[in-house]
Amino acid sequence: MAEQKEFDQAHLTLQEVTEAIDNGRFVHVRRQLQDMEPEDIAHLLEASPRRSRDVLWQLTDPEDYGEILDELSEDVKDSLVSKMAPQDLAEATEGMETDDVAYVLRSLPDSVSKQVLEQMDLEDRLRVETALSYPEDSAGGLMNTDVITIRADVDVDVVLRYLRIKGEVPTNTDAIYVVDSESRLIGELPFTTLLTTQPDVQVSEVMEDADDAILVTTSDNEVASLFERRNWLSAPVIDENQQLVGRITIDDVVDVIREDAEHSMMSMAGMDDDEDTFAPVVKSARKRSIWLGANVLAALAAASVSNLFEATLSQMAAIAVLMTIVPSMGGVAGNQTVALVIRGLALGHIGDANKRELLLKEAAVGLLNGITWALIIGGIVVLWKGNWLLGGIISAAMLTNLLVAGIAGVTIPIMLKKMKIDPALAGGMALTTVTDVIGLSVFLGLATLLIR
Amino acid sequence: MAEQKEFDQAHLTLQEVTEAIDNGRFVHVRRQLQDMEPEDIAHLLEASPRRSRDVLWQLTDPEDYGEILDELSEDVKDSLVSKMAPQDLAEATEGMETDDVAYVLRSLPDSVSKQVLEQMDLEDRLRVETALSYPEDSAGGLMNTDVITIRADVDVDVVLRYLRIKGEVPTNTDAIYVVDSESRLIGELPFTTLLTTQPDVQVSEVMEDADDAILVTTSDNEVASLFERRNWLSAPVIDENQQLVGRITIDDVVDVIREDAEHSMMSMAGMDDDEDTFAPVVKSARKRSIWLGANVLAALAAASVSNLFEATLSQMAAIAVLMTIVPSMGGVAGNQTVALVIRGLALGHIGDANKRELLLKEAAVGLLNGITWALIIGGIVVLWKGNWLLGGIISAAMLTNLLVAGIAGVTIPIMLKKMKIDPALAGGMALTTVTDVIGLSVFLGLATLLIR
Repeated sequence: MAEQKEFDQAHLTLQEVTEAIDNGRFVHVRRQLQDMEPEDIAHLLEASPRRSRDVLWQLTDPEDYGEILDELSEDVKDSLVSKMAPQDLAEATEGMETDDVAYVLRSLPDSVSKQVLEQMDLEDRLRVETALSYPEDSAGGLMNTDVITIRADVDVDVVLRYLRIKGEVPTNTDAIYVVDSESRLIGELPFTTLLTTQPDVQVSEVMEDADDAILVTTSDNEVASLFERRNWLSAPVIDENQQLVGRITIDDVVDVIREDAEHSMMSMAGMDDDEDTFAPVVKSARKRSIWLGANVLAALAAASVSNLFEATLSQMAAIAVLMTIVPSMGGVAGNQTVALVIRGLALGHIGDANKRELLLKEAAVGLLNGITWALIIGGIVVLWKGNWLLGGIISAAMLTNLLVAGIAGVTIPIMLKKMKIDPALAGGMALTTVTDVIGLSVFLGLATLLIR
Repeated sequence: MAEQKEFDQAHLTLQEVTEAIDNGRFVHVRRQLQDMEPEDIAHLLEASPRRSRDVLWQLTDPEDYGEILDELSEDVKDSLVSKMAPQDLAEATEGMETDDVAYVLRSLPDSVSKQVLEQMDLEDRLRVETALSYPEDSAGGLMNTDVITIRADVDVDVVLRYLRIKGEVPTNTDAIYVVDSESRLIGELPFTTLLTTQPDVQVSEVMEDADDAILVTTSDNEVASLFERRNWLSAPVIDENQQLVGRITIDDVVDVIREDAEHSMMSMAGMDDDEDTFAPVVKSARKRSIWLGANVLAALAAASVSNLFEATLSQMAAIAVLMTIVPSMGGVAGNQTVALVIRGLALGHIGDANKRELLLKEAAVGLLNGITWALIIGGIVVLWKGNWLLGGIISAAMLTNLLVAGIAGVTIPIMLKKMKIDPALAGGMALTTVTDVIGLSVFLGLATLLIR
């Protein structure tokens, strides 16, 4: 209940804060920000246009900087961090988890991140440097290095007393790890086991196999897939010598899952998934121009096809009027298949063993929808233009193009993936180029053969 | 390390299993399935074409049915469950978590789910019926009802002994809840606190405020957003009287986050996000036809615009050849904006307070890219067709259309959301219709005015 109210409040403040900033009531804003959770300030910053974002950041308590930066998306974080002095940044990183500090430092120029590291205390610095030594998109880049370890030959009671003396445990800890004398992981003791076991039992008797250990070099997508499939809350991370090097908790994985899914959606529209909603105009325009440039080639390919049939077009304008329908339907149908295949590839449901089956199925769907829409569009054209031949031609082109769309919709993303090109990014445009070219060629070609 | 091997194995078996089924080696497959984790069998079923899927299901140990069903996506689950007898289903639900049983039962016809409920033991049945009484897409539909509760006036030591006597706790429990004599939630005791507190301390002294309590009627998307922003692992669920009714754990929320993000991606291509990769052909074709039907209207709208300019088209075929370029670029640019806005709306970053700002920014991006591509395309057309006037006309149309695309890309999704229409589903097509109609009208209109 309390939470509900808080949540609504956080939504309200965007409007309030904007108005207050516009009216120069900075003290009021600063007071409001002090009452807010860092997560909500992060949300507010994401939703703020750039000029109020910078003002908001100035008015925020620097003690909250670390936690806020941790919640921000890449582009927004970069835009704020790039204006901060190294020692302010070093202060902000205090109290942040190792993996999150590394995440912030990675986006800085090397010289700045080195300065920030120099300002940190030695223990923190070593931890962060360890995290930085692994690739960002690997288990090593996701993990925290603050783990609690015990030996297998102690009693549960000893563990309990040890934890009470420690007084606190790292955030989101739900298990402690059992290691041998050489730091090799040999088991784990979930808190649930620890709490339901009699104090005089030895750890070795109740510990679980550490068969969920993740190798430090595993890619972040594979880590996310493991967490999702096994419903884990946390997992230990080991190096190639079986030595425990850290732990990954599900809150870090949730970010990977979210980014992964967003990546597909944004890429399919030709957008960078890091793009800040309120990015500077010139930066946005430049980033998006790459994709528009690719589309110019696609559009020119289609225009070149029509150009081949210029004589037909000049003879009968109705053909020019109708010629956009077939490519349009092919593009839409093909992109339905592309979306299905991209999701299947991302989830690992599509591979060599079943791609033939999928191709046959999508070709059949294309054929069936091709027949349906060939009849409907053919009928409409006959009624509209009163020309049976033209109706027949558009029907034949429609049928062909929807069949091609089904086949290309399966083969293009799979081929792109084999060529190590992101199918979510390039799949839709490659497909549309194919359906445009085939659709126009068949329609205009048949018209040239049969009508001229 | 062990995990890594297991993961690869699960990937291998799709090929192996398919071959073994094709060769009728059923005993071999059954033995292989026995060695696999239920999650991996679920993954295999998702990736299997329909005929091998049914065989695989027959060969799976019925004891694993519950856990497997729990991991499957909606359409795949439905296709398997619809062929099972009610008492087999009731058996399968044993050992599943309440929310997961409810999830399976919801997809069944009422008569069948009633039969399944009758086969369950009374306690389980009451729990599932409670879960079924809440909407599927609410906190009530996500929660588990098996929670551990204690009173505030007992010592930590008493809690520890109580847990040891219980001997086990529900899956993914990381906290116990403190309630008063009328079951109202007054606080919570995370396991981490329980483990780091001296045994003689009273619960009331160390318990945390239950300010993360979620109202049972909260929508699942809002629950997901709270978990993501606050980095929670679990949260208590209360009813309007503050009484504790259950708890939500992050593994259920991860599914919501994944489905949510997939929904946007699939909807934008006009696909149902539940669609099984290997759905029956007729079912797929019928589902996708709705979207193709909508596109027929969009394509006919564009053709009607060209039809207005039939006289111009018959006079100069080069115009027909070039007329597809402007709508194509407008559609791509507009859909970039639509993707950005859909993501922003989904994350709650876009609202009344900042939509004007966003509109101005996207219009500016459209204008800037409009100028760039007007110059480039205009240049290409002058070189290609040797006609300065035609180059000027296409430049003017391109500039107008990219500006319109930026404005429509912001306003259409926001308007659709206000009208309670899913912007991810309808946004792209509505945008394309606008950019097609405006692009063609301006290009053909100018050509008619200036060239004829």
